[in-house]
Formats: sequence, C-alpha cells, structure tokens
Amino acid sequence: MSESDSSKLPTEPLKFRVGCVGGGQLGRMMALEAPRLNIDMKFLDGGGGACPSAQVVGGASGDGEARIVKGALYDDDKLRELSKGCDVVTMEIEHVGVGGLAKLEKEGVNVQPSSRVIGIIQDKYAQKEYFLEHNIPLPPYVNLPSIDAIHSAAKQFGLPLMLKGRKGAYDGRGNAVLKDTTPEGISKALSDLGLKEDDLDGALYAEGWINFHCEVAVMVVRSTTGETRAYPATTAIQTDSICRVVLVPARNIPANIRHRCEEIAMKAIDSLGDGATGVFGVELFLAHKDGGGMDVLLNEVAPRPHNTGHYTQDACAVSQFENHLRAVCGLPLGDTNLIVGASAMINVLGAPTGGIEATMKSVNAAMAMPRSVVHWYGKGYRPGRKMGHINITADSHGELDASLAKLLGVEGISEDVLPSDGKIGSSPLVGVIMGSQSDLPTMQDAVNVLRDFGIPYEVDIVSAHRTPEKLMTYSKSAAGRGLQVIIAGAGGAAHLPGMVAAMTPLPVVGVPIKTSTLNGQDSLLSIVQMPRGVPVATVAIGNAMNAGLLAVRSLCASRPDLREKMEDYQLKMKETVDGMSEKLLEQGSDKFLEGMGNKSKSVNV
Amino acid sequence: MSESDSSKLPTEPLKFRVGCVGGGQLGRMMALEAPRLNIDMKFLDGGGGACPSAQVVGGASGDGEARIVKGALYDDDKLRELSKGCDVVTMEIEHVGVGGLAKLEKEGVNVQPSSRVIGIIQDKYAQKEYFLEHNIPLPPYVNLPSIDAIHSAAKQFGLPLMLKGRKGAYDGRGNAVLKDTTPEGISKALSDLGLKEDDLDGALYAEGWINFHCEVAVMVVRSTTGETRAYPATTAIQTDSICRVVLVPARNIPANIRHRCEEIAMKAIDSLGDGATGVFGVELFLAHKDGGGMDVLLNEVAPRPHNTGHYTQDACAVSQFENHLRAVCGLPLGDTNLIVGASAMINVLGAPTGGIEATMKSVNAAMAMPRSVVHWYGKGYRPGRKMGHINITADSHGELDASLAKLLGVEGISEDVLPSDGKIGSSPLVGVIMGSQSDLPTMQDAVNVLRDFGIPYEVDIVSAHRTPEKLMTYSKSAAGRGLQVIIAGAGGAAHLPGMVAAMTPLPVVGVPIKTSTLNGQDSLLSIVQMPRGVPVATVAIGNAMNAGLLAVRSLCASRPDLREKMEDYQLKMKETVDGMSEKLLEQGSDKFLEGMGNKSKSVNV
Repeated sequence: MSESDSSKLPTEPLKFRVGCVGGGQLGRMMALEAPRLNIDMKFLDGGGGACPSAQVVGGASGDGEARIVKGALYDDDKLRELSKGCDVVTMEIEHVGVGGLAKLEKEGVNVQPSSRVIGIIQDKYAQKEYFLEHNIPLPPYVNLPSIDAIHSAAKQFGLPLMLKGRKGAYDGRGNAVLKDTTPEGISKALSDLGLKEDDLDGALYAEGWINFHCEVAVMVVRSTTGETRAYPATTAIQTDSICRVVLVPARNIPANIRHRCEEIAMKAIDSLGDGATGVFGVELFLAHKDGGGMDVLLNEVAPRPHNTGHYTQDACAVSQFENHLRAVCGLPLGDTNLIVGASAMINVLGAPTGGIEATMKSVNAAMAMPRSVVHWYGKGYRPGRKMGHINITADSHGELDASLAKLLGVEGISEDVLPSDGKIGSSPLVGVIMGSQSDLPTMQDAVNVLRDFGIPYEVDIVSAHRTPEKLMTYSKSAAGRGLQVIIAGAGGAAHLPGMVAAMTPLPVVGVPIKTSTLNGQDSLLSIVQMPRGVPVATVAIGNAMNAGLLAVRSLCASRPDLREKMEDYQLKMKETVDGMSEKLLEQGSDKFLEGMGNKSKSVNV
Repeated sequence: MSESDSSKLPTEPLKFRVGCVGGGQLGRMMALEAPRLNIDMKFLDGGGGACPSAQVVGGASGDGEARIVKGALYDDDKLRELSKGCDVVTMEIEHVGVGGLAKLEKEGVNVQPSSRVIGIIQDKYAQKEYFLEHNIPLPPYVNLPSIDAIHSAAKQFGLPLMLKGRKGAYDGRGNAVLKDTTPEGISKALSDLGLKEDDLDGALYAEGWINFHCEVAVMVVRSTTGETRAYPATTAIQTDSICRVVLVPARNIPANIRHRCEEIAMKAIDSLGDGATGVFGVELFLAHKDGGGMDVLLNEVAPRPHNTGHYTQDACAVSQFENHLRAVCGLPLGDTNLIVGASAMINVLGAPTGGIEATMKSVNAAMAMPRSVVHWYGKGYRPGRKMGHINITADSHGELDASLAKLLGVEGISEDVLPSDGKIGSSPLVGVIMGSQSDLPTMQDAVNVLRDFGIPYEVDIVSAHRTPEKLMTYSKSAAGRGLQVIIAGAGGAAHLPGMVAAMTPLPVVGVPIKTSTLNGQDSLLSIVQMPRGVPVATVAIGNAMNAGLLAVRSLCASRPDLREKMEDYQLKMKETVDGMSEKLLEQGSDKFLEGMGNKSKSVNV
C-alpha cells in the first residue's frame, strides 16, 4: 500500500488476456469486471481510443502494448492484430467478420464463442433454421428471397406481416411491418429496411403474427465443457422496439412458465454445441394458445451479454459480464441466482432536449434513491441514444414498484428516461382478507400494525363460500403479484384461511373471528385443525393485532431493518408495563384501581 | 454499438476528474467503480505504471493526458502535478504530505478529506486527543515522549502495556507489547517499533489493556454537506494483527450494542467537522465492563475506504468505493444497508509456499462456490501479502457459515488463506424445541420437513417450567445466532411457545402436543390464546409437519428458490391425491377399500 511496496516488487504477469471484438458499452462493462478476475482486456473498435471500452482499459500500465486496436470488425488483419498476445478472443457484438475469425481459429487462436456459432446466429434466418432442426419452439417464419415470396407469405400468414432483415439488425432496426401487398406498401416496407426489390435474396425473412402476451428474456451462460446455467427469466418492456425497462423475476407469469422459458433458453444454447461458450441473451415470446394456456417461442439469440441482463450487475452474485469472462477463460461458472427479491433495470436514453446536462441531472438525482445504482457508458450524447442504465433492487416486487414509482417522480426522469405508460404499478407485501365486511372491525387491528411498521398492504373481502372463484384467483395470483404473507380472518365454519393456504405457497395467518353462538371456538377449530401438508398460522380468537405482528415477524427473515423495528416495539411494550408497575407501586392498589374507574371493595373478614 | 457509431460521434467530456493520492488496491477498486459514475481517475504513486491502480485507468483513451504520476506521496510538487486538471483530490492512504495538501488548498484545489482532517488522523495520538475532546469513548492512553514516561505509564496502566507508533502504522506494524520494564524489555519493544531511546518525542504513545471482547469495524460516509451514514457494524477477525475475515452483521453482539457502535462511529466522524468528506473506516473495541455489560471504545479511524468494508462491494447496493467517490464529488450519498442477509470477506494472502500459482489455484477453485466473488489486486506475489479478497453473501448467518465451511474445504484454502481456528462455526436457520423428550415423536415430523427442504436446523429440549433460565437464554440469543424461525412444541399448560415469542422478534410456530387427559385441547388453547402484542403461529394439535411447512413458507419471503420448492411440493400433494382418485375410479370403492385392508360392509336395506 505504501510507495515503497509497489515499486520494489515485481508485478506478476496477469493470468489471462482476453481480446474483445467491439469496444462499446458491453465491452466496457466486461472490462470493469476483468481486473478483479486477474484478466486483462484488449479491444478492436472502429472508434479506437474514443470508444466506451477504451476509457477503462489499463493503457497506462506502461508495458508498451496497445490495448486498443482501431479498425473495422470485419477486417481480417485487424482481427489478427487484436488476437496478438491474447489467450482467447471473444466479442461484444455479433456483427463481426466470421470468415476472419475462422481463419484465426485455423491459425490456432482460441475464439469463444466460435466462428461457426457466430455464423449461425449472425444470420437470423439461418438461426431460425438451426433451432427448428433442434426442436426449439419458434413462431411461424419463412424465407423471402423475392417479391413473389412476400406475396405468398402474406397469403400464408395473413396481414399485417412482420418483415425482418436477416443480418445486421439491432434495437428495432431491421424490422418492418407490411400492412398491405400493394406495390407501394411493399416498397415502403423494403425502404424502411434499407433494401431494394431486386436485391432480396439472403436479405429478408417474414414472421407470422402470434397472439402476443409479453416478451421474456433469459441470459444463459455456457462453459467450454458444456455446463449451462440460466439467469432468471425477465420481463422486457419495449417502447418503439427499444428495450426500456427489464423486470425480474418476470411479472405476472406463473413459475412453471418462467421455468419453461429458462429451460427452452438453455436447450437452445446447448443445441449450438461445441464453441457455444460465454453468455447468450435469449429473447422469447409468450403467446396465448388458441385453446388456452401459453406457448413459449424463441425470438432470437445474441451471442454475448445483453441489455436485458444488465440487472445481474446489482441483483446477482455474479453478473453476466463476469460470467462471460469466466466462461471464455475456462474459469468455474458463477452463480446465476438472484440475491435480492426483485430488481429492475431502466435504460437511460439521451434526453430529447437539453443535451447531456439534462440527461445527467435527472439521472444523478436518481442516485439519491435507496438501492439505485447508475451505470454510465461514457458515450457521446444524442437524443434517444442509450447512454447508460439504472439498476434498482428490492426485497420484493412491492418494494421494487414503490421505488420505480419514486423514480418516476424524479424531475426529468418521467418524460425523458422512463416509459410512463402505466405498465409499472405498485403492489403490496401483505394481503389482508376476510370472509365478510362484518369482520373488518376485528381485522382493522392487523391493518394498523402493518401501517405502523410501514409495510405496504392491501385489504379485500374474499368469501370462501360466497365468492369461491375470487378465492381461487386471489390465492393463485398472490405470490406472483408480489405478496409475501396473507392474513385471512373468518368466523364460524371458517374455511377462508385454509382454502387460501391450499392454493398459495405463501404463509397464511388465520384470525378466528369471535362468533355470537360459540364465542369463536367454532372459528378457532375450523382454522387451526388443518390437515397435514397445508398449514395455517392461527392466532387467538379475535386477535388480528397478533396476526399483523406475525406477518411482520415473517418478513423479518429478509429484512434486518424490520427486525430491529420489532425489537423496538417489544422494548416499548416492556416499558409500558414497567410504567404501570411503577405507578402501582407508587399509588398502591386501592388508588390505582380507582384511577382505572373501579372502586376497591373491602372484604369483611 | 457498431463501428460507425462510435467513430462519428463526439465523446462528451466526463463530468468529474478525481485525483487520488496513492495507487494501491483501494485506489484500484475506486477506479473500477468510477467510470459507471462518469468519473475519470488519476493517481499519484511511487510505483508509477506498475501500481495496482495503473492497470485499470483509462490511459488508452488517447487524450494525451497522463493518468499516473510517479512520485512520493509526501512530495509537494508531485501532489501539485496530480491535482492538475482534477475537480477534486482525495486519497486512498493517510500517510501523505499534509503540508503539501494544505498548500494546494490555499491555491484553490478542492481536497477531500481536507489536509486538516488528515493531519488529525495521521498522528494517532493527536487523533485520540481530538476524539477525547469531542467526548468519543476511548481506551485509556497516554503520550510517551521519553523512557521515563514509559515507566510511569507501566505503573499507571500495569503490564503488559501496548506501545503504539504515532505515525505510519498499518496492518499491525507500529504496535508492540511491553512485557517488562527492564532496560532489555524496553529496548526490545522499541526496536520492534523501529524507534531509538533518544528519539521518542512525538513518536510513541501507550494504551492500557482493556477487558477485550472483540473488534468491531464500521464504515462511515460523510458528504460535503455533513450528511453522515454508517454501514452496518462488522466483526473483524484478526490473526497476527492482520485482518483475515470480516463478518457482517457483527456476530454474537446484541442489536443495541451494534447500533451503539454505528452511532459512536458516526459521531466520531461527524466531530471532525468540515472537510471530513468521504468514507472513513472506524475500528472499535468492545470491552467487558467491570459491573457487567459492554463498553464500546474507539480504536482508530482511517480517512479512506478500509479492508473491513470490502464486503460492501457485493453485499450492499452501493459499495464503500462508490460512496467515497459520490461523497468527494458532491453526488448524493448511496444506500449503506445490506441487501443480503449476511456476508463475509476473506482476505487472500500470498500462499506461504508455491508462489502465485498456488495462491491463484486455490482461490480460483473458490470461484466455483455459489455466491463467492473474487477480487484480485493485480499485485506481485509475496508470502503473506494481501493479494486480493473473496466476498461471500448469503440469506442468513446459517447459510453463510455453511458456505464458509465449504470454502475451508477447498484445497489449499484452509492452510493458506483462511484462519482455520474454529472461530467460524456453522449455525442453523430454524430451531425446533420442545418442553419434554416425550414430545419428540411428534416434533420429528417438523424436523423431517426441514430436512426434505434442505434447511439447516437445530433440535433441543427447553422446558418453560423446569429450565426457565435456559428458556430465556435460548430465546434471547436466537436471532443473534442466525435463527430465523423457532418451532416450539408443548403439551398441557403449554407455555413454551408463548414465552419464547415474548423474548424474541422471530416468528414462533406453536405445536400443541396431544395430551392423554384432554386430547391436546388444553395445549391448543394455552398456545393459541396469546395476549395482544405477542403472537404465536399455532398449528393443529399434534401437527408438527405443518409447523415445519409454515417455517419453510416463512423463509420463502427472502428465497425465491425455496418458494419454488414449496410450489413443487404442493404439486406433488395434488398428484398424490389425483393418483388415489384415479385408482378409486378404476377399482371402485369396494375393491379400493379392500386394498386399504378394510372390508366393505354391506348394508341391509
């Protein structure tokens, strides 16, 4: 640490050097993880020293070697120059010279992912053909080598028809909607894609419309030995074909569908075989099936870290960038699980007016929010350009939504940065439900506790016997909506808590409501005597306050701050009783009883 | 992202440039956070381009400006050279030229923390005098300007006596234990400190022994406007005066003592006043008071990010390095709370034998562990040198300890890297207790559920009426030991669950044991009818299985993986019943009943 230390000792050579084709923000974020892993990076980029990655690589370390090669990503010689001195060559963009990479491989250079894999992915039609052959579910698609093919595709799939460029597309570029098959309609769509009518062969394909529910993205990492891991499925919210917000875990999608997304993503990447090494961004469509249910269809794959995986920087133990480096360097793969309850990534786009200052001002203001982390890309300003992103983490969906709502309130954020289209709502952590409005005076005690502890909640009437469908919908959607505990109050043949518990994995607290006939003993026994396998946490008859406290104690498992509030609460109870005890000792029992409005009765002995 | 993009557009100037005095690992870790924040760094270090920070700053960005100044940290001219073009000058080490910094301040350079603050902290005796004046609790200490002073200090405080160098000390250097006051004894202690008998004035002070319990460290961040935030208190485990492992939240220390540590740390830093900007590492001693209870005493302060705060990189939303940069640049301070349940930092020391290869091999193997993150410093190898660290995060103390135990099992780690001195144990998440051994056959069902779900647990007998002291110790220590749920079974006048709930903030699940006299109705009512304020989650009579399931559901709040296991479990229950239903439909009720070992009885109508 002191001056003499660092000058006297030899600096050992770093273990790995990774050459990266492309020096944009993805390369930059890799380069920021690399030194920790004893990895040194080198980049090829057309921007040379001005690219986002150049700003963060160790050109100052004085070994005289250039860490940035300026040149085109399709230039064989530049690719070779990049590979010099590197243990492995990888990429942060798929629009690279596959032929050049293949030559390097023949010369013995370790390229990960391999040129063969990049070749498959680079041509989106070839990608589809490959995955079809490997039994990955896809939306309907067809090659469009000619104008005739466009007409027959329109007949086959109907209009509107999605036309997609086979190569070079990103961020919505390379997609056009064909609305009619008049010569003008076709001309317009082709010109949107920058294509000419007599030059269609190998340039275009069509996708049929699906009954779209939402877009899901899964990041997959695969090692050189074929070990494959998926990060959790995310919901990607797009505006104008540009990803704006990513939410994780994916919202309003049952766990089994989320898992199917992760499995299909892993299967797709694994099907690419040897050379499919590193992180792959897998975009999926969820589509409604005709007969009900949901189809998971592969949209497309990117052979690199991906915008929809940026949340992993702050929400997972090992980010997509670290895992990409681990994979291509042959290090053990890192954990892909969330270490937080929920996370959101918001892309920062260049403000429409006000330039870099306006963009920075609002984003820096967002830094003041708890658990918000800003990632700038060091890129020049342009309205609408992706210039950075903000990651937010939270213990639950509900808290995440509260943070997002707060972020939307930051001046300048709502119009310029976040899509304020109402897709982001707010959701509670605890659901308080009861069989009848007559239970509310009792159940309000639970609500008061939640309010005192600052826990977001919802209150509703759900009757097991009078609204059985609502009971089912409520119970089955609860966990997916972000609830973490349900408090259910019921009286008499009190079935509500047990029925809810049967249809949710959440802890259910049952409050037996006092009844006029049996004083609530009927409610108590109905609620507490649940069969094996389906527990209800039962509290005393009419004691909804304790149900609220139990919900808080449950939430403490993940929230040390809440546990401390609970300890304070217990201390206050103790102090209240101590205060009463002092008063009793001071006043004596007769006077104390009088103060309570009672008269001491003398006993004649 | 494409080549043409990055070459065409102008790159806007970065918002801040931070000059950092010292280019060791702390500077390097700052530099790895800086680009995200639109901050550009420059370093002064004796090692020049070979220092750990040089490897990660953007010298390649082609603006022709040197990012590394080679020179001594006490050299006024070099400090001035560093400050050129910087918006603010900060430091990653306190052994710097205070006079030079003061000159720069006079010339209008923004130095954070200020030379005045560094001056106070740099001289550990002056630091003590300052904090004493500001009512910060300290161990007893005295200045030692002469040999005579050593003798009188030995009389005043007794032997052994801790002698400490006033300046330039770190990692245990600069401390010596005086065991006797013979001329030889004093000579030895002074030579350990590199001091001569005739040159003591201003070089040495003594600290009296305290009844040491453990060392706690708190990272504090303070903004230019005086806002002060503390990261959670940590336990620092030292071996040979070198920090080896940091555990957070601090272990086996009640919440109120942890908070007192955090408050004293914040008060100390705040007392430094204007210019106390950035992150400060505050080391504290916990000492047993003579009459019982615990004293929190300030040991020393470092005006920079600190080894005991490295865990913040992976366990907090905003790390100490980011918060230091935010503070000195006048950006909003970031969140200092844990985003995980628990975390550990393990320093990686150069292996005693086998050189860099042996050190790297064992540490890279540790990368395979879930939620372990490796941070290398890019430093040359030397046996025992701090070369990096490993951060581990977990949902709870118990899971963290399981990971640490696993880490100790990685080949090469135990001897070379981790102190295997038994200070790190393993602790459970759920405690299963019962009033009597006769309850075990019932309670075992809860244990089986926990085992099936892979949740670490402990089982014990705690009787409210026969072992009331044990009841109290168990309940009060439960949360501190890392338990997250307690399951308590009791029969008859079943007081155990309620009494435990009265003395812990954890959720307590009560299992009413079936009794011979009243079939467990006595147990049920004793357990469920708790007064307002102290909840017990009661399950059906004898149904410990449901208690286990309730504990699992409670833990789901923080663990999505567990929630999915619970959903699978519920699916399996459904399938079992569906299977029975199919069999019944297939066989008819008569045959089915026979299969169950019962005979269908015909009813004579």
